[in-house]
Amino acid sequence: MLQLARFLPAWMRNYPRHHLGTDVLAGVVTTVLVLPQSLAYALLAGLPPQAGLVVSIFPVVAYALLGSSMTQAVGPVAVTAIMTFSVLSPLATPGTAEYVALAASLALMSGLLVVAFGVLKLGFLSDLLSRPVVSGFISGSAVLIVISQLRLLVGVEAQGADSWHLLAATVAQLPQLKPATAVMGLAGLVVLLLCRHALAPTLQGLGVKPARAQAVVRVMPLVVVVVATLAVVAWDLDTAHGVAVVGAIVPGLPPLQGFVPSASDLGLLALPALIIAFVGTVQNIAMAQALAVKRRERIDANQELIGLGASNVVAAFSGGMPVGGGVSRTAVYVAAGAQTPLASLVAASAMLLVVLFGTEAFTRLPLAVLAASIVVAALSMIDVAALRRAWRYDRADALALLGTATGVLVVGLEAGIGIGIGLSLATLLFRASQPHIAVVGRIPGTEHFRNVARHGVQTLPSALFVRVDESMFFGNLRAIEERLGAELEAAPAVHDLVLIMSAVNRIDVTALEALTDMHRDLGLRQIRLHLAELKGPVQDRLQGTPLWSALSGGVYLSANGAFEALSPPLK
Amino acid sequence: MLQLARFLPAWMRNYPRHHLGTDVLAGVVTTVLVLPQSLAYALLAGLPPQAGLVVSIFPVVAYALLGSSMTQAVGPVAVTAIMTFSVLSPLATPGTAEYVALAASLALMSGLLVVAFGVLKLGFLSDLLSRPVVSGFISGSAVLIVISQLRLLVGVEAQGADSWHLLAATVAQLPQLKPATAVMGLAGLVVLLLCRHALAPTLQGLGVKPARAQAVVRVMPLVVVVVATLAVVAWDLDTAHGVAVVGAIVPGLPPLQGFVPSASDLGLLALPALIIAFVGTVQNIAMAQALAVKRRERIDANQELIGLGASNVVAAFSGGMPVGGGVSRTAVYVAAGAQTPLASLVAASAMLLVVLFGTEAFTRLPLAVLAASIVVAALSMIDVAALRRAWRYDRADALALLGTATGVLVVGLEAGIGIGIGLSLATLLFRASQPHIAVVGRIPGTEHFRNVARHGVQTLPSALFVRVDESMFFGNLRAIEERLGAELEAAPAVHDLVLIMSAVNRIDVTALEALTDMHRDLGLRQIRLHLAELKGPVQDRLQGTPLWSALSGGVYLSANGAFEALSPPLK
Repeated sequence: MLQLARFLPAWMRNYPRHHLGTDVLAGVVTTVLVLPQSLAYALLAGLPPQAGLVVSIFPVVAYALLGSSMTQAVGPVAVTAIMTFSVLSPLATPGTAEYVALAASLALMSGLLVVAFGVLKLGFLSDLLSRPVVSGFISGSAVLIVISQLRLLVGVEAQGADSWHLLAATVAQLPQLKPATAVMGLAGLVVLLLCRHALAPTLQGLGVKPARAQAVVRVMPLVVVVVATLAVVAWDLDTAHGVAVVGAIVPGLPPLQGFVPSASDLGLLALPALIIAFVGTVQNIAMAQALAVKRRERIDANQELIGLGASNVVAAFSGGMPVGGGVSRTAVYVAAGAQTPLASLVAASAMLLVVLFGTEAFTRLPLAVLAASIVVAALSMIDVAALRRAWRYDRADALALLGTATGVLVVGLEAGIGIGIGLSLATLLFRASQPHIAVVGRIPGTEHFRNVARHGVQTLPSALFVRVDESMFFGNLRAIEERLGAELEAAPAVHDLVLIMSAVNRIDVTALEALTDMHRDLGLRQIRLHLAELKGPVQDRLQGTPLWSALSGGVYLSANGAFEALSPPLK
Repeated sequence: MLQLARFLPAWMRNYPRHHLGTDVLAGVVTTVLVLPQSLAYALLAGLPPQAGLVVSIFPVVAYALLGSSMTQAVGPVAVTAIMTFSVLSPLATPGTAEYVALAASLALMSGLLVVAFGVLKLGFLSDLLSRPVVSGFISGSAVLIVISQLRLLVGVEAQGADSWHLLAATVAQLPQLKPATAVMGLAGLVVLLLCRHALAPTLQGLGVKPARAQAVVRVMPLVVVVVATLAVVAWDLDTAHGVAVVGAIVPGLPPLQGFVPSASDLGLLALPALIIAFVGTVQNIAMAQALAVKRRERIDANQELIGLGASNVVAAFSGGMPVGGGVSRTAVYVAAGAQTPLASLVAASAMLLVVLFGTEAFTRLPLAVLAASIVVAALSMIDVAALRRAWRYDRADALALLGTATGVLVVGLEAGIGIGIGLSLATLLFRASQPHIAVVGRIPGTEHFRNVARHGVQTLPSALFVRVDESMFFGNLRAIEERLGAELEAAPAVHDLVLIMSAVNRIDVTALEALTDMHRDLGLRQIRLHLAELKGPVQDRLQGTPLWSALSGGVYLSANGAFEALSPPLK
C-alpha cells in the first residue's frame, strides 16, 4: 500500500478532508455547466458532438494524476478546436472516418510533443511566443471562429475553401435562411450576450449579492440550451421547420479507438501539431501560473506540460480530439469552489454517467443555439484592451499583435503565427540595432555619471565619456561606430575616449573585430581608448584577445576612477 | 562650367595635381596585372571570357564617379562569379544567349537593389550578416570554386548537377585526363602557390627590399600566364595535344546589350540578386572602411552602395556580369600607388584599349593556367584563422561560422547563407534568453555594489538586491522569474526586493505584464518591490503603467540610495 502511494500525485497522498464536500460539488456543477460547450467545440472541430463529451472523461483523469495545477480544468477548447478544423478540413471531409482518424493523430502527435517538451525540460521553447503574439493569434482565431458559426446560426447551407470564401458563401445564401433557425440562433445570441454583459450589474442593481449574481450568469447558458431544446420538442421545430439539431448520439463509451497514423499523415500534421502544442503550452502555463499566484501556490512548468501532453495522448485514443486548459471551463471550475484535482475526477465521473445514460437529452438540442454560445465565447476572446495597452506602452509590440492577428485572418492560422514569431524576432533585432548611447559627465560632488544632455554635469575637455546601453553585436555596430565617430568629430580636442560598459552584457566576434579596428583607427588619430565598468564575464572573454593586450588606454572599475585618472593634476 | 562642376564628384573638383603621375601609373599597372583574373572570373561565372574585360571598363567609370572610397577597385570578383554560376547553371546552359541574358538580368537586379539600399539608407540591413557568417560563407564558396575548377585544371570532361556530382564526375574521369593540360595546370598551380607563400620571404632572405619583393610576387601571375601562352604557341599544345585555350575573342566593344528580363526570370532571380547584393554590400563596405581607416579617410556607407549598385547596373548593359569590390584587385591597386579614383579611370581606359586592339594576345592562353590562378585565389579565401579566433573567443559565433560554411557546401550558397542568418539570430535569442543575474551587496565604505558570490560585501538581512544584466523581454522572463523565485525561497526573511536595472535597456509588453504579475504575487507574500538605477527611457515608459502607480516599494536613483533607505535605523 505504501509502495502504491508513492506513485500517487502529491495532492492525493495528503488530501485535506475538509475540501471533500466543495470538490465533489464543484465537479458535478462544472460537468453540467460545460456540457453545451463540450458539444459545441467538438462540432467546431468538425467532429461528432459526443467527441467533446468523451474527451472530458479519461483525458481529464490523466491531467488530474499528472498535471501540476490544482485548479486548471482541461477539456475541449475553442482555439484548439478551430485549429483542428483549419488543419484537417483541407485533408478530409469533416464527419468521415478518415477525418476522425486524422483528428486523433493530431491529438496524439501534439500530446507526445508536449510530453517531450516537459520531459526534456524544453518548455522554454514556448518563450518564442511573446504575449502580444499569443494575444493577436487568439483574437484572430476568434474572428475565424465567428465566421465559421454564422451559417449554423441562421441556418443556411454554405461551404468555402477558406474562411473568406465561407463568409462570402454564407452572405450569398442569406436570402435562403431558415426563419425558425435564424430566430432561435439570433435570439440565443442576444440573450447570451445580455447575460454575459448586462445581467450581473442588473441583478446587483436589484440588490442581489455579487457572488449569487455571478452564479446566475454562469447558469444562464445552460438555461438557454434547455429552453431551446424544449422549444424544439414542443413545436417539432426540427422535423416541421428544418431546425438542425445535434441528432441521435449512441449512448455509452465508444470502443477504444485503434488507429495507426500513416507516414504521410505524420508529415502533414507535424507542423500543425507543433503549433497546437506551442500555443497550448503557452496558454496553459500562463493560466496555470495566474491561478497559482492567486492561490499562492507554485506550478512546475515542465510537470504541467507532462500533464497536458498526457491528457492529449489519452484523448487520441478516447474521444479523438486535442484538448487544452480552457479559460471559461477553468473559470466555472474555480467559481464552483474546486480546491484540488479531486473535483476533476468527480467531473470526469459525472461526465461518464452522462455519456452512458444521458445522451438522449441532447438529441433535439438545436445547433443554432450551440453556434450562438460559440460566437459569444469567441467574441470574448477578442482582446481589444490588450491591443490598446500595448499601443500605449510599446508600438512595436502592438504592431506584432496586429500583424499576427492580420496574418491569421488573411493567410491562416499557421502562417499567422509564423508571421507573429517573425515580427517578434524582427522587433528584438531592430531595437537592439538602435542602441541608446549617451555622452555622460559627473554630477558635481558625487561619483555618479549622467547624460550631459539631461543633467548639469562636469566634463573633461580632453576626455569623452560615452556609455553604450546595449550589448555590442553584429546588428548594432554600425550605429555605435557612427555615433562615436560623430561625437569625436564634434570634439576635436579629445585625446581620451572612455567607453562605459556597465550595460554591455556581451561583445560578440563581429563587435570585437570592430572594436579592434576602431582602436587601431583611434591610435592613428592619437586618441587613447579606455574601458570602464566592464562586467565580469565580458572582461573574462576580452582578456585573451589582441585588443586587450594592445589597449592604448586603461581599464577602470568605475567611470569615476577613469575620471579621476584623466583629470588634469591640480596646480 | 561652374554648373557642370557641381555634378562632378568631390575628388575631381579639387584634384591634387601631384597625384597625377602615381594615379596614371597605378591605373596602367593594375589593368595589366588583373587581366588574367578578369578573364578567369568570367569563365568561373559561366560567361565568355571577354565579359570579364568589358565589365572592367564602364562599370569602373560608374564607380569612380559615384562611389565614396578613394582606392577601392571594382570589377569581376570570385564570390560573385561563383554565385552567378550557381544560380544560373540550373536555369540555362552556360555559354548560351539565354544564359548571358540571365547573367545580365542578375547584374541589373542586384545593382538596382543595392542602389535602392543606398538611396533609402537601408545599408543597415546588411548588418543581418555577422562577420562569422560572412567569413563562413566566403570559405564555403571558396571550396565550391576549387571544386568547379578541378576539371579544367587537369583537362577532363565532367559535368554534374551540383558541386558534389561535379566532383564525383571529375574524379571518375581522372583516368581520361589530358596529360599536357594536367602538366600545365598543376605546374601553374605549384608555381603560383610558391609565389604567393614562399617567394617574398625567399627574396627578402636574398636581400631584396620588402616592397620590391612584393612587387615581384604581384607580377608573377602575369609571368606565369605569358610563359604558358608562349608554351602553347611554341609547341602547338592546343591543336596537337588538346590543351583547351581561351579561343578567339572578337575584338572591339560588344554592342550595347538590350534585354528585357521576363517576369518569371525576375521571380527566379529575386532572391539570388538580393543575396548577391547583401554579400556584395557587406564585403564592399567592410573593405572600403578598412581602406579608409588606413588612409585616415571616412567613407559614406550609403554613397558607397550607390556607387556599387550603379556599377552593376552599367555592367548589366555592358559586359553582362555582376561586379564587386575585389580584395586582390584592390590590393594590387593600392600597392601600385593609386591615390584617387582617377587611377580607376586610367585603368578603364587602358582596358578599353586592350579590348579594342589587344584581344588576340589571349587567344591561345590555356584555360588550365587560368583555373590554377582561380584555385590559388580561392584557397586564400578559406579563412581558417578566423574560425580559430572565433572558437577561442566565442563558441556560438564559431558555430555560426562553421554552420554557414557547412550549409554552403552541403545545401548550396543560398540556403547556406539562410542557415547562417538563422544561426546568428538563434544565437542572439539564445544568449538573451539566459540573462546574467547577480545578487549584489555593497562594498564596505563605498557606494559600489558587486556580486555577493565574487566579493566580500555588506548585505541587509531583510532586503535582497538583485541586478539583472539584460533587457527584459519575452524570451528571458521565465529565466528571470525562476531565478528571483529561487533567491526569495532561499531567503525567507526578506521583505524587500530591490531590482537594480542599470543594464536593463528595455522592458517589452510581455515583460511588463510579467513584472506586474510578479509585483502582485510579491504583495500577497508581504514583499515590497523596489526599482533602482532605472534608465531614463525605461522609466519614461513605465510611468504610464498600472505597475508604476501601484508599486509597493520605492524608485531609487542608485542602488546605494535604496540600501540607505532600507537599512535599519542606527540605535
